[in-house]
Amino acid sequence: MAERIAVIGAAGFAGALAARLVHRHPRYELAAVTARGDDVGLPLDELYPHHRVPLVLEELDLERHGDVDAAIVAYPHGASAPVVAALRETGARVLDLSADFRLRDAATYADWYGEHGAPSLFATAVYGLPELYRADLAGAELVAGPGCYPTAAILALAPLAAAGLLADVVIDAKSGVSGAGRAATRGTHFVTVDENVTPYQVEGHRHAPEIEQELGVRVTFVPHLVPLDQGELVSCYVTPTSRLDQAVLDELYADAYAGEAFVELAARPPGVRDVRETNLCRIHARVDERTGKVLVFAAIDNLWKGTSSQAIQSLNLMLRRPEGEGIA
Amino acid sequence: MAERIAVIGAAGFAGALAARLVHRHPRYELAAVTARGDDVGLPLDELYPHHRVPLVLEELDLERHGDVDAAIVAYPHGASAPVVAALRETGARVLDLSADFRLRDAATYADWYGEHGAPSLFATAVYGLPELYRADLAGAELVAGPGCYPTAAILALAPLAAAGLLADVVIDAKSGVSGAGRAATRGTHFVTVDENVTPYQVEGHRHAPEIEQELGVRVTFVPHLVPLDQGELVSCYVTPTSRLDQAVLDELYADAYAGEAFVELAARPPGVRDVRETNLCRIHARVDERTGKVLVFAAIDNLWKGTSSQAIQSLNLMLRRPEGEGIA
Amino acid sequence: MAERIAVIGAAGFAGALAARLVHRHPRYELAAVTARGDDVGLPLDELYPHHRVPLVLEELDLERHGDVDAAIVAYPHGASAPVVAALRETGARVLDLSADFRLRDAATYADWYGEHGAPSLFATAVYGLPELYRADLAGAELVAGPGCYPTAAILALAPLAAAGLLADVVIDAKSGVSGAGRAATRGTHFVTVDENVTPYQVEGHRHAPEIEQELGVRVTFVPHLVPLDQGELVSCYVTPTSRLDQAVLDELYADAYAGEAFVELAARPPGVRDVRETNLCRIHARVDERTGKVLVFAAIDNLWKGTSSQAIQSLNLMLRRPEGEGIA
Amino acid sequence: MAERIAVIGAAGFAGALAARLVHRHPRYELAAVTARGDDVGLPLDELYPHHRVPLVLEELDLERHGDVDAAIVAYPHGASAPVVAALRETGARVLDLSADFRLRDAATYADWYGEHGAPSLFATAVYGLPELYRADLAGAELVAGPGCYPTAAILALAPLAAAGLLADVVIDAKSGVSGAGRAATRGTHFVTVDENVTPYQVEGHRHAPEIEQELGVRVTFVPHLVPLDQGELVSCYVTPTSRLDQAVLDELYADAYAGEAFVELAARPPGVRDVRETNLCRIHARVDERTGKVLVFAAIDNLWKGTSSQAIQSLNLMLRRPEGEGIA
Repeated sequence: MAERIAVIGAAGFAGALAARLVHRHPRYELAAVTARGDDVGLPLDELYPHHRVPLVLEELDLERHGDVDAAIVAYPHGASAPVVAALRETGARVLDLSADFRLRDAATYADWYGEHGAPSLFATAVYGLPELYRADLAGAELVAGPGCYPTAAILALAPLAAAGLLADVVIDAKSGVSGAGRAATRGTHFVTVDENVTPYQVEGHRHAPEIEQELGVRVTFVPHLVPLDQGELVSCYVTPTSRLDQAVLDELYADAYAGEAFVELAARPPGVRDVRETNLCRIHARVDERTGKVLVFAAIDNLWKGTSSQAIQSLNLMLRRPEGEGIA
Repeated sequence: MAERIAVIGAAGFAGALAARLVHRHPRYELAAVTARGDDVGLPLDELYPHHRVPLVLEELDLERHGDVDAAIVAYPHGASAPVVAALRETGARVLDLSADFRLRDAATYADWYGEHGAPSLFATAVYGLPELYRADLAGAELVAGPGCYPTAAILALAPLAAAGLLADVVIDAKSGVSGAGRAATRGTHFVTVDENVTPYQVEGHRHAPEIEQELGVRVTFVPHLVPLDQGELVSCYVTPTSRLDQAVLDELYADAYAGEAFVELAARPPGVRDVRETNLCRIHARVDERTGKVLVFAAIDNLWKGTSSQAIQSLNLMLRRPEGEGIA
Repeated sequence: MAERIAVIGAAGFAGALAARLVHRHPRYELAAVTARGDDVGLPLDELYPHHRVPLVLEELDLERHGDVDAAIVAYPHGASAPVVAALRETGARVLDLSADFRLRDAATYADWYGEHGAPSLFATAVYGLPELYRADLAGAELVAGPGCYPTAAILALAPLAAAGLLADVVIDAKSGVSGAGRAATRGTHFVTVDENVTPYQVEGHRHAPEIEQELGVRVTFVPHLVPLDQGELVSCYVTPTSRLDQAVLDELYADAYAGEAFVELAARPPGVRDVRETNLCRIHARVDERTGKVLVFAAIDNLWKGTSSQAIQSLNLMLRRPEGEGIA
Repeated sequence: MAERIAVIGAAGFAGALAARLVHRHPRYELAAVTARGDDVGLPLDELYPHHRVPLVLEELDLERHGDVDAAIVAYPHGASAPVVAALRETGARVLDLSADFRLRDAATYADWYGEHGAPSLFATAVYGLPELYRADLAGAELVAGPGCYPTAAILALAPLAAAGLLADVVIDAKSGVSGAGRAATRGTHFVTVDENVTPYQVEGHRHAPEIEQELGVRVTFVPHLVPLDQGELVSCYVTPTSRLDQAVLDELYADAYAGEAFVELAARPPGVRDVRETNLCRIHARVDERTGKVLVFAAIDNLWKGTSSQAIQSLNLMLRRPEGEGIA
């Protein structure tokens, strides 16, 4: 029998794509899609005709929308925590796409996001990166979907981190505009972005502490906005704790990702088009012979593996379904 | 001595570019730039660093800002008329970029725009298309800058109209996103526009009556949004009143635009890149031998010849300066 | 048991996508992919990593590659006919993506393409537009895949054509760059296309006679290149033989496309993003009250419904499989 | 009296823009434009209508084309040196845009480019970066125009280098496609670049030794291709030899670039649009408080300040004209 899934906050890019993936999933039933404010009452097809999800955005009603096997919550940071807590009380499993349950250190959360909206649940979620937390995700009741930059950066560097090889880390990230969300602002206006490349939040981006938590080292992280829709590339420049040669590096990555269906090790640097609209992360690691640095490039689709298809990957584990069901 | 020019409403794309062109003009002095609402007090350099205009946006003060040789008004339709009227009372010449003074038939204006904000001035402006109204523009006190689509469409078809050759006219127009203005909306969000082409206002666009007024015939006009910043192409499909051959057509256009500094007749269809950031309109006209139709393609930069540099061209005439000064 | 399918000429955009769709088809087996010249020996994954087809491009070997249930041929016009003929001799069904078998009038073919490479097969193919030729396609042995522009234009106008309503037809088409094929030329260079819109082949495009053959009327057809990858919009301006009202028009289209899985009738003009990477044609038809013209807009993905996924749709019919298998 | 300037190799992007800038220069006369191969005999207007240079590309004739005050040579690396040598023999001053005269260490040149085509002139040129070599450029007879990446990277880091503060340097660069030149290849095909971001030449790019020569330290340099036409951003991640605070950093840059007309110090990270079609380099430097690294971002237009307008800036110095004449 089909598991019933609700998507809470389906008017934004992440929630709408999650709704589509649930709707087309061979096993799940999309029980409901909700929105807030003016979007309530709109057919999802009007906002996102290409998703072809024939449901209308409803106002959240915990009684009805909590009566599901699982809910995917795609609310903004801060707004998410109380809704997640309420849904958990109904017994539904929850996969939360906000940052509210990603961090495990309360002081760090407070520094970057302020007061938490559901302190009793803080640090109780499994981090929804299946390649690193597969066992914990199996049957989990509360999962925090990683940020898009952390997804790429952590997958890029986890093998080096696990081997204790990260002495100094610079991450230069490039993201398409869908990563900035659906809000129409000066920053997402076509004329601002087109024919442009811009570093942003150079004074500190909220994804840095998340990356640091998972890698166990301090990183310099700078995101850039590039003129494309979906796609994200992280270029990582690592000073290793000891000099590596290419063969060792290759083996390290091959071992780390052996059998992973959604990680591709590539012989050449990936472009973001290589993974567009897929759940794949494509990685290329190489030793720079001139400087001894290790360069690692990882490409994902920020809305898919970076957010919504990875959410389905985790959800499949939470519900003990085949991990790639509906997203391969 | 330099003429002093104010730009009223310089926070939008058209006004800001007009301010830049005045600021760099070899003869004019940019006396002030004004804005409304939250933009007051912002340095223009913060909104438009590439224009490099070192002025701060002020709140409109008719006393000070009317004390100029001329004002360029870049307000929205409807909001413009009363400001134009007030500026005229100070004695300043005015070039208005809105639609408020373009039409000459009051009923048509009412149909498309509603009540007029300065009825006593209605239909008193010269239509600011120098190639057709050069003599009237010389020394004119009130000029209505044409819409961007009308600029391209009228220049494309005026020679045929003057010769009485327009039996049926279809105009399929394609515009870059800057034509939609600075407002951040769902329609100008990068993700909406990127990798997309969309017809819009197919039920009737306000530029149709303006084109019809100048060409003297009814037209079918459909604009499309294309994923680029600045640039506009009109593709015109004309059923002529009598069959033409190519040599006659070529001569008609060569005669019509002989000596025009800002109209280029091209041997091949123009692309909008050919005229980017110029005051040029590039035109190609050809007889379709298979069908007898006359095809005319005209490319402009919607913000330059379509709006702001054409405004300077008209302003030069109004102030009896060389027509191409500062824009060639 | 799986039908075995070869893709002949899989190094180009159309053939490579056809190979991918066959490879992922729940029923078919991709027996081989072939190429010509320097591409022989390349893994398809190297040219098109995002297609993820783990085959190597082979040189064509009629003996081996003809021993399949069906072949999709994606050769250039002219080069295709002899290969198709040879494959037919082996008994394989053939779906040809070139123009070689689309036209039914020999003189017209000669005018636009020159001498035919397989005269005995000329005009023997079924035209592979399932919405119009479904019955003929069932079990067909030789099918000519329509051009991308004809696919959109014919679907846009067929209901009006069938009703004898087409008095005068102008088709202004806009296509993404993938329609120009894989060849690296000045015309496909990023710097030529980016921030540009250009009409091309205004002196006559080969798709015009194909459209005219199917609609039964002469058309004015002008394609434009727009700066995007995949996507095609046709904007059709029809002078009807008699004045229509909107309700009648709506009913005409609703009747014509009732039950069609791959035609969507939309309440608003479609954008090409609405159908990206789908086999759908999305259509909006409206009466222009001001002029009496009928405006019809149709959007497709030129590589999918315009070429390769439509080929699978036809192939499914040829092999008596469910029409939407593998492409819905 | 006007200095006469020839542009040798004007069919490519850099040479064509140089020709346009000379043609519009208030003082210089564009004496001739030359090309090689099939381009000989083409009007430059046919290849680059937007440049509006009414000259025809000629075959190089040293007698005629050497009889000028100066020549700008825009040949590929390797092909340039012998032509430069021949032009120098005629007595003409030469500004060379290739890499042939940029490096001062013969072994480094040999490693990256092979045998040199004019050994007697090797290392005799002045490096054409006016902000660093202004005095040497005055009246110089042979100048090597810097690479586009070196221009941005050196301007970004020169103040830190001069102060001996560069301990470790990572440069992540992003360039528009015009940087790849006019050749139509798979890499410059619109469909390859659009909606993509790709690192390239990660195994070592020829601009690295040029940057290292000028900064005096080893650097890790990785360029990326981004989907835009003109524009280049370098993001530099510096481990300083000693911890800096922001005020010291600001003063360092303010002092270094005081009075420089073509360097802008910005309070926020620049986007490449800010400097499009200008000779400006816009720089933002900041201390990352979390890691102690110094981040420096510099934006240029790769074809303007990165190549051709900077060539005019140097040429002005060579010919003892005002440095900004014709490019401000």
